[in-house]
Amino acid sequence: MKYAIMSQKDLNKLLETEKEKYSEYLNMNLKYDMTRGKPSVKQLALSDDMMSDRYVGNYKASNGLDCRNYGILEGIPEIRSLFGEIFGVAPEQVIAGGNSSLNIMYDLISAFLLLGTAKDSTPWVKQGEIKFICPVPGYDRHFAITERLGIKMINVNINDDGPDMDVIEELVKNDASIKGMWSVPKYSNPTGVVYSDEVIRRLAKMECAADDFRIIWDDAYSVHMLEGEPAKQLNLIDACKEAGNPDRAIVLASTSKMTYPGAGISAVASSIDNINWFKYVFTIQTIGPNKINQLRHANYFGNYDNVVAHMKKHAEILNPKFKRVIQIFEEELSEADILKWSNPKGGYFISIDTVYNCASEVVAMAKKCGVLFTEAGSTFPYRKDPENKNIRIAPSMPPIEELEVAIRVLCVCVKICSIEKLLDK
Amino acid sequence: MKYAIMSQKDLNKLLETEKEKYSEYLNMNLKYDMTRGKPSVKQLALSDDMMSDRYVGNYKASNGLDCRNYGILEGIPEIRSLFGEIFGVAPEQVIAGGNSSLNIMYDLISAFLLLGTAKDSTPWVKQGEIKFICPVPGYDRHFAITERLGIKMINVNINDDGPDMDVIEELVKNDASIKGMWSVPKYSNPTGVVYSDEVIRRLAKMECAADDFRIIWDDAYSVHMLEGEPAKQLNLIDACKEAGNPDRAIVLASTSKMTYPGAGISAVASSIDNINWFKYVFTIQTIGPNKINQLRHANYFGNYDNVVAHMKKHAEILNPKFKRVIQIFEEELSEADILKWSNPKGGYFISIDTVYNCASEVVAMAKKCGVLFTEAGSTFPYRKDPENKNIRIAPSMPPIEELEVAIRVLCVCVKICSIEKLLDK
Repeated sequence: MKYAIMSQKDLNKLLETEKEKYSEYLNMNLKYDMTRGKPSVKQLALSDDMMSDRYVGNYKASNGLDCRNYGILEGIPEIRSLFGEIFGVAPEQVIAGGNSSLNIMYDLISAFLLLGTAKDSTPWVKQGEIKFICPVPGYDRHFAITERLGIKMINVNINDDGPDMDVIEELVKNDASIKGMWSVPKYSNPTGVVYSDEVIRRLAKMECAADDFRIIWDDAYSVHMLEGEPAKQLNLIDACKEAGNPDRAIVLASTSKMTYPGAGISAVASSIDNINWFKYVFTIQTIGPNKINQLRHANYFGNYDNVVAHMKKHAEILNPKFKRVIQIFEEELSEADILKWSNPKGGYFISIDTVYNCASEVVAMAKKCGVLFTEAGSTFPYRKDPENKNIRIAPSMPPIEELEVAIRVLCVCVKICSIEKLLDK
Repeated sequence: MKYAIMSQKDLNKLLETEKEKYSEYLNMNLKYDMTRGKPSVKQLALSDDMMSDRYVGNYKASNGLDCRNYGILEGIPEIRSLFGEIFGVAPEQVIAGGNSSLNIMYDLISAFLLLGTAKDSTPWVKQGEIKFICPVPGYDRHFAITERLGIKMINVNINDDGPDMDVIEELVKNDASIKGMWSVPKYSNPTGVVYSDEVIRRLAKMECAADDFRIIWDDAYSVHMLEGEPAKQLNLIDACKEAGNPDRAIVLASTSKMTYPGAGISAVASSIDNINWFKYVFTIQTIGPNKINQLRHANYFGNYDNVVAHMKKHAEILNPKFKRVIQIFEEELSEADILKWSNPKGGYFISIDTVYNCASEVVAMAKKCGVLFTEAGSTFPYRKDPENKNIRIAPSMPPIEELEVAIRVLCVCVKICSIEKLLDK
């Protein structure tokens, strides 16, 4: 039954029952961490074979270079080819880097500020206030970068097919200080939304007052489906080129959630002009990437099909966890009409929306039981969810038995907060 | 016999002989590259055993963390301890990072520009012109960073015991826009100079108009002796602390020339306040370092004594090359008095000074024979050697037979240029 139409008496009774449950959980000394999208130990073990020294062979890259020595700023040919397949671009449009695509994003935005977006462009620090569009809810670490670097963030709501394009088009047409936009286009963090081809086309061709507008296209989950094959999606780099805005798209990915988080390979793809600019930046910033690790990854995967095959093994481990969370929400809350939850086809998160102004209290209550969720607000710029509704759930790490308990705890907290709100307590 | 006091006739005769030799070299189709300080294949092979999977074991760091997953921004405990031993500081004063200490230097200076050097400090981009002191001749990639980031460079000559402290003290006392200084304190690039304890003490205690003056102490060759034990040197971090300037020293190193260049581990050491500030920067910039590679290195070396033992094997390979170069210079040029060469006890370079305004011509002539040396001027800021005298020689990479030919070619070029100069040709 919908809570909103229940009698005060029934609500009070229900509240008492739920509070009893909550007390029990309080006494269980739980210690579950669902704050971050970390792969589980089982998932990590899928790539252990990669540590075999046969994947580094005689240390020679396909072009003959000894990967044990200095050289090749842009990454070894075979890893650029592999990422070229993943991104759907030519290897020449790829720079394969170190272990963190987030690091590349920070470094590029930092370079745009200090050096500009291209040869003879004006550095952003010399252009007054700079703004970025932030689809919300979104990825906290993106927002942390723009906040840290003094870039003003503008929230734009995300719909089922991607960010609200009517709003974005209006914003970027009229404000030349809006220089860029964050995005996780496939299985978005945290909503799981897959941007539609129509949204991608509009992003590629929209008129921007800033002639150096950049879309940071964090394709972190491009092959991270929960079942079947990776979702098909229009290629932003192609779409931008066709629309006459070839330098607008900056596409990133890494193998962090394919092999080992933090010990994988990251890469960036873009137009040749952008890639040349990035090389101009990186050639002074670094001595080049760890080529041994690139060689290991390239040899281990070989090609895109093997990457997808490998990701299906991850899906087999992840999908039951996601399904179980959804199932518990349905069991506990489908009648109540006090919680919305996403049902993603990929990625690492389930996004929930409580009733207005309850999210932080729900997270705090769960924390008292020893069940940690990402801080409420963290899916929004400046950690401020204007409606205090959104909570990001990361089901990947805990074993399924722990996950079940954690989500039951969450449901109790949601119920108690919602009822207290309805009763004006 | 000294060229300067030879008769015109004798010089002309000598010139003819040397030009004949040069013609012979021209026809030999040589192809030697001595531009960069790259370890040889033999040196790389010294570390191949490190690729064995036994050095990553069960992927667990000493604190129990699974190195295959996210976590530990500042590096795993055992690699921080190892670098602590190398730097002579507590592990807490170390951040162990990715594969490039140059990258850390760029990132820190970039952060100083955008965010400042400490909490509540004013970012350097908001402080007008910023300057750095550059001991010359020095490391081209240092100078490239400051040039790229718009920091004005001031040359200060390096003496046998380090940079000219009288000049530096005068400069920093009177100019608050001088915010920092580059340095390679041990077996300096390219001079091989080991900064004396007295120089280090003066650097630590000198009065600076800028209260956020920073010394970038690139201790790239701290254990890279050519024979015996590493040179002992006063610890700059201790000296700065004692002098009441605890945050002045930023010390860096990497295993690039211990294990594999570009696939090693880099680290930075400083005061706890600085380390906390660097963490504040890095926690937004990156997801953390590759901990698998850190674990591999920590397990492979174990402790400082093993590092030194390993470096002695490098020395056994490198020392004969350095000795041979010096020997050829002595054979060819000790009588002539037209060339000065360093005789380093460690590091990767021999530095030579030709007579005034000859270096670029010498390098160009050698290049015509297919023997590549680092471009003349590159050991100075803006690639401008005011006297056009200095050339950096990197003897590490070629086999000794090739090295001999390359240095003979160099000597012929030096002789021809010098004689033509003396004859006003």
